[in-house]
This record gives sequence, structure tokens and C-alpha cells, in this order.
Amino acid sequence: MTDQPRVEIYTKTDCPYCEKAKDLFDSKAVEYETYNVTGDDERFEEMVERADGRQTAPEVFIDDELIGGWDDTAALNETGELDEKLGIATETDEEIVEHRKLIIAGTGIAGLTAAIYAGRSNNEPLVIEGDEPGGQLTLTTDVANYPGFPDGIGGPELVNNMKEQAKQFGAELQNGIIESVDDSSRPFRVELTNGDVYTADAVIAASGASARTLGIPGEDELMGYGLSTCATCDGAFFRGEDMLVVGGGDAAMEEATFLTKFADTVYIAHRREEFRAEDYWIDRVHEKVESGEIEIMKNTELIEIHGSQAEGVDHVTLVENEQGHPTDRLDDPETEEFEFDVGAVFFAIGHTPNTDYLEGTGVETDADGYLKTTGGEGGGQTETDVPGIFGAGDVVDYHYQQAVTAAGMGSKAALDADEYLENLERADSSVADAEAAAADD
Amino acid sequence: MTDQPRVEIYTKTDCPYCEKAKDLFDSKAVEYETYNVTGDDERFEEMVERADGRQTAPEVFIDDELIGGWDDTAALNETGELDEKLGIATETDEEIVEHRKLIIAGTGIAGLTAAIYAGRSNNEPLVIEGDEPGGQLTLTTDVANYPGFPDGIGGPELVNNMKEQAKQFGAELQNGIIESVDDSSRPFRVELTNGDVYTADAVIAASGASARTLGIPGEDELMGYGLSTCATCDGAFFRGEDMLVVGGGDAAMEEATFLTKFADTVYIAHRREEFRAEDYWIDRVHEKVESGEIEIMKNTELIEIHGSQAEGVDHVTLVENEQGHPTDRLDDPETEEFEFDVGAVFFAIGHTPNTDYLEGTGVETDADGYLKTTGGEGGGQTETDVPGIFGAGDVVDYHYQQAVTAAGMGSKAALDADEYLENLERADSSVADAEAAAADD
Repeated sequence: MTDQPRVEIYTKTDCPYCEKAKDLFDSKAVEYETYNVTGDDERFEEMVERADGRQTAPEVFIDDELIGGWDDTAALNETGELDEKLGIATETDEEIVEHRKLIIAGTGIAGLTAAIYAGRSNNEPLVIEGDEPGGQLTLTTDVANYPGFPDGIGGPELVNNMKEQAKQFGAELQNGIIESVDDSSRPFRVELTNGDVYTADAVIAASGASARTLGIPGEDELMGYGLSTCATCDGAFFRGEDMLVVGGGDAAMEEATFLTKFADTVYIAHRREEFRAEDYWIDRVHEKVESGEIEIMKNTELIEIHGSQAEGVDHVTLVENEQGHPTDRLDDPETEEFEFDVGAVFFAIGHTPNTDYLEGTGVETDADGYLKTTGGEGGGQTETDVPGIFGAGDVVDYHYQQAVTAAGMGSKAALDADEYLENLERADSSVADAEAAAADD
Repeated sequence: MTDQPRVEIYTKTDCPYCEKAKDLFDSKAVEYETYNVTGDDERFEEMVERADGRQTAPEVFIDDELIGGWDDTAALNETGELDEKLGIATETDEEIVEHRKLIIAGTGIAGLTAAIYAGRSNNEPLVIEGDEPGGQLTLTTDVANYPGFPDGIGGPELVNNMKEQAKQFGAELQNGIIESVDDSSRPFRVELTNGDVYTADAVIAASGASARTLGIPGEDELMGYGLSTCATCDGAFFRGEDMLVVGGGDAAMEEATFLTKFADTVYIAHRREEFRAEDYWIDRVHEKVESGEIEIMKNTELIEIHGSQAEGVDHVTLVENEQGHPTDRLDDPETEEFEFDVGAVFFAIGHTPNTDYLEGTGVETDADGYLKTTGGEGGGQTETDVPGIFGAGDVVDYHYQQAVTAAGMGSKAALDADEYLENLERADSSVADAEAAAADD
């Protein structure tokens, strides 16, 4: 490894995306240096300067070249360019074909639970990590409601436990992103973005959902420069600022509560009158409202973010209408538009299911892109419209979206896939048996 | 407590039902003495003599009177007679009515997960333990596939963790058995077997399923005298004997594997050619077959158990037909009936859902008695035919039946119930709103 280029990663304490970046390089057996900027003003300023003004961690450098944050690094990895820069690229024109009984897309709670069960069923699953290894739960500091841990457990710790458990039962976890699944013949043809091709008798789609954005002016420019979709990752960078959280569900309440540790005041903008969040989180937020740390802006929507990459977020434009959903009522004279000063904006407005790689297949999705599964009463609850392709976790479930419901569904998908695989193995002998039986009649 | 009668419990090491008996007396704040008979031949002989020849633990005595094993003690508790014998009976004619937002039936994995989630949703659930507190998992020594515990976790330990977690979020666990639910008016009227009556806005049925028996000659007489439904509870009592396990699923494989620790040879009688068990367990059993510790009797059914309460099981009668299901083919000349010497018999032939208390309601069940839930794709997956009554765990799921699938469904039931309860609370104000809106038109 003496020819390896120099890899440097600026990190901070309690930063899930920093861990992801480190995990990625670990998985490639690439050595790197880390600089923790938490509480180290000098390092922080050095990072901001080298990163062209970006104030978020991680920031990755290869031989002094700025790669960027986790998203940039992951994107580069997806195309194979990262391996090229690291001098570890393999021949990419060549299709490396291996056949697997079962490929699982995703290493969130659903994918890992499917891997545990599939491993125990001797289906030797290959688990492709995707572009958010560990899934949404790696962004959660403390999971209090996953049954079995009365003192709570950290999201990354729970994910790591499950990875360990899956490996013990023979699951193989592999860094990579699935580009497409071809269901026009069997076995399925599964192609990764780096050009590797596998065939598989069955596929479990546990590819989760990714944070949604609003598509408003200022968003693209300021993402990573004061706009974030992960409070636990980036909150501490904006200590002492006023912060705006956009959303009304559990995630918004949890992020707002968390951000009070750093913010002057946290504002929550929600487009409706009522929050969708569970009572537990609404209560926590109301406690913070009473103590003056949070202010709630109901029936309010964000329509523009102002600022620059050099200076970060300066202020935002909001609209308000007491009937709710103000952007649907922009012509209503009751709708009020106003500017509002905040130093950081956090989106917590839900997720979009990750299903691009299934687009060419016969797998049906609903209007929002979530995979349709049969959801029957007995077995087969995770079957999609394509026999042999199963769905589990947030890529299917737009309603419950809990760690334990994802785990339950991952287990079901592995059991359904096992039944499918066993029937497949018996198919040949069954044909022979049927012919013999027909001859008897 | 000086007037309390003397309570004695004979126990053994690794005996879940002994723990249940102790938990029951603990829950009543009644003091007792325990005698562990494991490895203590003198104590064991003393127990057998005092228990009229019964060789299973626990054996409970109150003021020298033989109460019996766990089943007997639980049955006596159900009628209130146990409290009478203990001198702690309260007036039973009087209806003690308390109103609760949510009552959960059962403290297995599904019920406890529902309690964790309902607690966090501020629905202050009352959880009625039922006659098998902790549910089926308390009978499992080591749970290897519950996600989050890479080194595995003991069944009772996992259950206790969840109890602790549920209590922390405000759930109240109460010893008792539900006699009936009345859905003819709202709130629901929930009556316990001890005469206590509660009203509740919503009910989650997480009452699980109980071990099934065959209904064959010798069964009633010998249950607890060499016949058992719990290998981990009673296996060690028959050290050095030949043992017969009846069944072909995961439980049968697991019990047979476990019993090799004690048995001379373990025989598995299964009515079909193929086992239903997962590959993991089939592999474990085949390893034991190769080492000569297990012998498999396929296409074989048990039709009678011979022995006496004094001497235990002496031998059994089996029938065999290579086409499978021999008891359906008793007239077939190919069906062979034969006697077989074994010293103990363990049933592992599945479960019957515990739904008696719902019989008077509009909740629909399938032919086997399992609760029907809607099983939809989005929310509301745990709704029964009666709005406000929800089902979760083995009382609904006859197919997957895993700890993690029960937990997932318990979580869903609590979230569904919370949505129902919130709609109920809003109902009054909605009516007022609708009237106001109608006046505007």
C-alpha cells in the first residue's frame, strides 16, 4: 500500500456521515488520516479554507484534492472514479459474473434482518450496501423504542450489531450500488454501478428511502452550506444561530429537540395546523416551547433560502395562511409572505423510496414510488408482482416506518424468499413426479 | 405477612415454568421457599413422593397441600382460589371498575412491544399478563435470530428487557386473565376471571397461542408424568432414557437437538416425509443423526401413550405408512402399527390461538381460530372486524411466528390503536366543526 495516495478526512464528534466515509475507506482497506474539528477552531478554519468555504463534515481529500462531503464521495464511488483516484481500480469493462442464490439490496434494518434470516436458511445472501450503508437508523443518535434495549441503543450500534449477526450466519456484505435488475429471464441479472454483474435466483429489495427536499430556490446552492437533511450530523456547526426545521412528523420533532442543544432558538415551520408526530415527541417539543427554546410556526411553508456558499444561510422566505398549506393558496389575500432571519435550515419532510434500479422490471409501485407487496394475511406478505423479487422496509412501508417494523418485514422477506428458492429447487423433481403420477392414472 | 401460609416450590435449573411460578407469587408479594432438585437426588425423591409420583418441576405446596405444577397453580389462580388459600382474597362479588384508554391482552413479544409503543404514545396501557406470562419465548433457551444481539440472548432475558422498557414508558403490567370482552357498547367492557371489570376505549389482542396436544389415549393421564410440551422445562428429568419428539417444524428440531444432552437416543416422529423446519435446524438434526444421537421416523404418527403416573411413560404405539399421514390410512394394508419403548414423550406439534375471550365479539377468526386482520398495505394492518379491537403476534400470524415479526406487529397494533384513539378524541369536535361548516354553505 506504499503507492496509495494520501487520504485525509475532516470529522467531528457524533457525525454519522463521517462514520460512513470512514467505513467506506475501511471497506476498501485504504488507510487515511482523520482530523476531528469538534472544539478545535484552528482545524475547523483550516477545513473551511481547504473545502472552499464548506462548513460541514466530513470533508474528504485525496492527495490534497478536495473530494467533498459524504454525498460527493459516495457519488464518486458509484461511478468507480474513487477507486481510480485511489489507484485500486480493477478492469471495469470486464463483466465479473458470479451466481448467487439471493441478493439483498440494502444494509438498513430491513436488509440486515433479511440477511440474518437468509443466512440461517443457508441461502448465503450477498448484501449490497447501497449509497447509504446502514440506512436511516445510522442518523439516529438514540433508539428508545426498539424492543429489547430498556436503556435505549445508539442507531449506529444497533446497525453494527445486526451486521455482525448477519455475518455470523454466513451473509456476505459488499460495498456497491445496484444499477439495474433485469427480470426478462431467469436467473435475474443484477448489475452494479461499477460494472460488476451478478446473477441471482431471488432478490430482496430493502433499499429504503432517502431524505426528500423541496425543490425551492437556493436549495441546490446551499445544501451543505447551511442547509442540511441531518441535524445530528450538522447541527453543531451552527452553534448560537437561529435554526429552522421544516416538517411536522417524528423526525422534525426529534431534530428540533436535538438542535436546541446548539441553537439560539429553533423554529419549526409546518404547513398544517396539526403535527403528524407521535405524542411522545410532541410533548418533548412543547416542553422546549415552554422553556423558550423552540417556537412553532404553524400553517407556514418555506419558499426560498437566501445566502451564499461563502457566508452560509442568511435568511429565508416563508408564507403563512391559517387555513394551512399556504403554497396552495398563494393567490389568497390572507396568505402572508415574509422574510425571516435564520443561520441554518434543516429539512425533515419525509423520504423518497429508492427504487430506480427496479424501473425496468415488472415490480409495481404506487404513485409515490413505494413498492407494492401483496400484504396477505398468511405467508407471502413481501412478494412483489415479479415472482422471486421481494420487498421489505421503508422501500415498501410508507406508514409505520419503525426500526422494529422494518426488522419484522425483513425477516418475512427472507422467509418468503426461502420458500420461493426451495420451490425452485424442487421444481425439476416435481415435474418428474407429475409425469410419473400422470402415467399412473 | 405473619399469617401467610407456608408456600414451598420445588424447582430445577433452567426451568421456565419454575420461574413463572415464582413470578406469580412475587407478583402477589407472597413469600416462599424453593428447593432446587437439579443434581440433588434426595430432594428429587422427596418431591416425587410428596407430589404423588409426579416427576416434573415446578411442584407447588401451600401448607403441605399439593397444588401441583404451573398449569395447576395458574388454573387455581384463574378462579381466585389461589388467593383464598393464600389468605389474600379480596371481595370478588364487587365489580372493581376502572376505565383505561387501552388494554393489551398478553405479555409475549407482541404484547410487550405494543406496550412500549403505546406507552410512548401516552395511551397508558394496562397489560393483562394472561396464563402464560412472557409468552412462548420464555420457553426458548437461546434466541439467535432476534436482530440486534449478535451473541444471541436468552428468551426470558429478552422478555424481561421488554417488560422493563414498557414500564419505563408508562405501561402497567398486571397479573390476571381476561374472561371476556363485550363489544355491544362503547367503551368495551373487559372482564377478568377474578371478577374485576375494566372498561377500555381500545383493546389489543396479543394473547398468543398455546401448545397443541393430540387428544390420544394416555395423554391426559400422563401429561406431567413423562409427557410434556416443553423440552427445556422437563428434558433433564428423563436423563438416560430414550425420548420421542412428535413434530416436524422448527420447534420439534430445536427440542430434539436440545434433548440429546440428556437422552440415550432421541426419536423424532413426523407424519410426513419432509420437515417444515428451517434449514438451519434440519442441518443441526442431521448432524445429530450422523453422530447417532437422533433417529428420524418419517411418515409416522403417535396414536397411544402407555404408562402410569407412578412409573411414568413405559412405551408408545406408533403407525407408519410411507405415503405419509398414516392415521388417515389406518385401513390401508400398507399401514403398519407397532409398539415402541421410550421413557418420555415431547409434543412439538404447533399451537392453538388463545381467543376464547373474544368469542362473544364481532372479531372474525379463520377455521383454525386465528384472528383475521385486514393486512392492508398502508396503515391499519392490525385492525380486526371490530373497530377498536386490534390483533398482533401469534394470535394472528400462523405463518411466520418469529420473535421479530411478533414485535413488528405489536408496534403496528399500538400505532393503529393510537390513530383510532386520536380519532375518537377528535370525534366530538369534528361533529361541531361539520355543523358549523354546514351552516356556512
